[in-house]
Amino acid sequence: MKYELQKTDILSKARAGKMTTAHGEILTPIFMPVGTAATVKAVHQRELVNDIKAQIILGNTYHLYLRPGLDIMERAGGLHKFNGWSGPILTDSGGYQVFSLKDIRKISEEGVKFQSHIDGSRHLFTPESVMDIQRVIGADIIMAFDECAPYPCDYTYAQKSMEMTHRWLTRCINRFDSTEGRYGFEQTLFPIVQGSTYKDLRIKSAEFVAEQNCDGNAIGGLAVGEPAEKMYETIEYVNDILPKDKPRYLMGVGTPENILEAIALGIDMFDCVMPTRNARNGMLFTTQGIINIRNEKWKDDFSPIDETLGGYASTFYSRAYLRHLVKCDEILAAQIASVHNLTFYLWLVGQAREHILAGDFLTWKNAMVKQTMQRL
Amino acid sequence: MKYELQKTDILSKARAGKMTTAHGEILTPIFMPVGTAATVKAVHQRELVNDIKAQIILGNTYHLYLRPGLDIMERAGGLHKFNGWSGPILTDSGGYQVFSLKDIRKISEEGVKFQSHIDGSRHLFTPESVMDIQRVIGADIIMAFDECAPYPCDYTYAQKSMEMTHRWLTRCINRFDSTEGRYGFEQTLFPIVQGSTYKDLRIKSAEFVAEQNCDGNAIGGLAVGEPAEKMYETIEYVNDILPKDKPRYLMGVGTPENILEAIALGIDMFDCVMPTRNARNGMLFTTQGIINIRNEKWKDDFSPIDETLGGYASTFYSRAYLRHLVKCDEILAAQIASVHNLTFYLWLVGQAREHILAGDFLTWKNAMVKQTMQRL
Repeated sequence: MKYELQKTDILSKARAGKMTTAHGEILTPIFMPVGTAATVKAVHQRELVNDIKAQIILGNTYHLYLRPGLDIMERAGGLHKFNGWSGPILTDSGGYQVFSLKDIRKISEEGVKFQSHIDGSRHLFTPESVMDIQRVIGADIIMAFDECAPYPCDYTYAQKSMEMTHRWLTRCINRFDSTEGRYGFEQTLFPIVQGSTYKDLRIKSAEFVAEQNCDGNAIGGLAVGEPAEKMYETIEYVNDILPKDKPRYLMGVGTPENILEAIALGIDMFDCVMPTRNARNGMLFTTQGIINIRNEKWKDDFSPIDETLGGYASTFYSRAYLRHLVKCDEILAAQIASVHNLTFYLWLVGQAREHILAGDFLTWKNAMVKQTMQRL
Repeated sequence: MKYELQKTDILSKARAGKMTTAHGEILTPIFMPVGTAATVKAVHQRELVNDIKAQIILGNTYHLYLRPGLDIMERAGGLHKFNGWSGPILTDSGGYQVFSLKDIRKISEEGVKFQSHIDGSRHLFTPESVMDIQRVIGADIIMAFDECAPYPCDYTYAQKSMEMTHRWLTRCINRFDSTEGRYGFEQTLFPIVQGSTYKDLRIKSAEFVAEQNCDGNAIGGLAVGEPAEKMYETIEYVNDILPKDKPRYLMGVGTPENILEAIALGIDMFDCVMPTRNARNGMLFTTQGIINIRNEKWKDDFSPIDETLGGYASTFYSRAYLRHLVKCDEILAAQIASVHNLTFYLWLVGQAREHILAGDFLTWKNAMVKQTMQRL
């Protein structure tokens, strides 16, 4: 994987860049729609391409390992062939999911023993097995197996957890380096910075991660409940250490405001379930602000969902119609709102990129945070 | 509304025709996707046009009356404006739905008192109010308010029910004739033949309906549990009475076999929830036969859902992928299967039309019934 840093903003740390993977280019900053179980929920693959203009999507190792399972994945020829998305794919390592299982998982130096949330069957993820699984899934970018410490988290736990994550990273890299892609194209591995909200731990972790000289680097363990200011502060000193000539991925973030602020701090890649999950609950992110489409006030608003944004879902359907569908629990409601929200998220990072290239990012960002976060 | 009978098959009673409504032409025989609550479930409006090639869709008076309600419907400018489907629309009268409510409705000469399945609120449908409601919804074709007798049904009940349906029809026609469309285009009213499975009642009802000289005629009260042979027999003698120069609509039918057999008996229009409802349960109708996509056997079948059928949903996605989505209860499963099944249903009636025009309908029909009804 190649990364070209195309421009750095003068008034902020925002960057425009270009990543080149075996499945195509990605212009950064970028938002990656989450396709947990080999599908971005309620969205057709052609809608990802034609409407949302997604450049890279996420898959999830934990979910894909359980269903459809590695046998099917391998016989399909990997995730790209299985779901028909031919652009770049990044797979989350499954670490976050297995740690979320809480009562049905056990962490040790070896790895994590857990029970499937589907049928209770017992499994073991180790740094090595997670590399092997992601080889079989065949994502372009695969993530290291880490422990995502909870928030709040005491210093001792955070330190021990981070140190184990580092040892796991070494094991991940060893395994990754001694194996090859299954389907004739190159994969790359991103390590993950941990250390909870402790500055010295985060710095130590960022230094350790930076030393590995991987093609890109990720920041994990944020947006897990800590105040936004704490998150921004952490990003700032971690990014001072992570190499400038590699893309930086902030995992699981966030609101339009979070994304814009993190771009200003030098983040290049994002993923979050928010645009799709909130869509299914009737919450719309628009160019003019946030809409709870269940509200009575939209019942006779026959104007498009978001005329400024443009695109099919956002301009063909009216707010009143979408509200009706949501109130009736119609599947089409989830479809329209998901395509709309993802179109908005991709528009937002695309606009950020344009303004970085144009040199007026900071002014634009400050106005856009206000505009997009107000409640309509 | 105009209807042109273009060709009648020599070896069967199958017909090819063309209906012209204020919202466009409909080539018959035709299948109408069911859009109960102003949406064909799990299907985008542009997919109805571009992928499924729907020519007319259904709306449901009962559902639309309750949600979004007549106030919103009228302010939207009718159903076409509300949901963005600009082709012809037919609305079911709500009769079938309110009779299905069983314990929470009461039938009298005046009409039907019922409680909403949503909030228990009390309402009254009369032949007159149902005409008024359908004026507000603004469908191109509106249906008379009838009682759909259950099956089995004793002769006395069937007769009384039919006679009331006839008196209601007179009231419907009177009300319809003394009112006008709300949105500047012409609507038309179809009466409905009832009479359960009693030949003399059906003949009497068909004669009464035919006498009304409406633009089209419907047969109701079939496919409610009676044997298929009984249904075909009934269609046969009813169609001998219904005028040849008007389209004939068989309500709520059915499987590919039912549709093909009914076309052979001179039916021109169909609607049924089967392609969409069964899609949501993982049952696919294909050009080669019926697939239960949940079956283990499809787990590693990476071939398209239906290559012969063509189209996006049926050729882009594999059977293995769709099975995975169904097993995971993913929304995309319902989307793919619904678009596929409806594409197949429209293909089926389109092919029937081609073969009627080509003069080899009967041979084709007999082969196609076998082919499409076999379990794969």
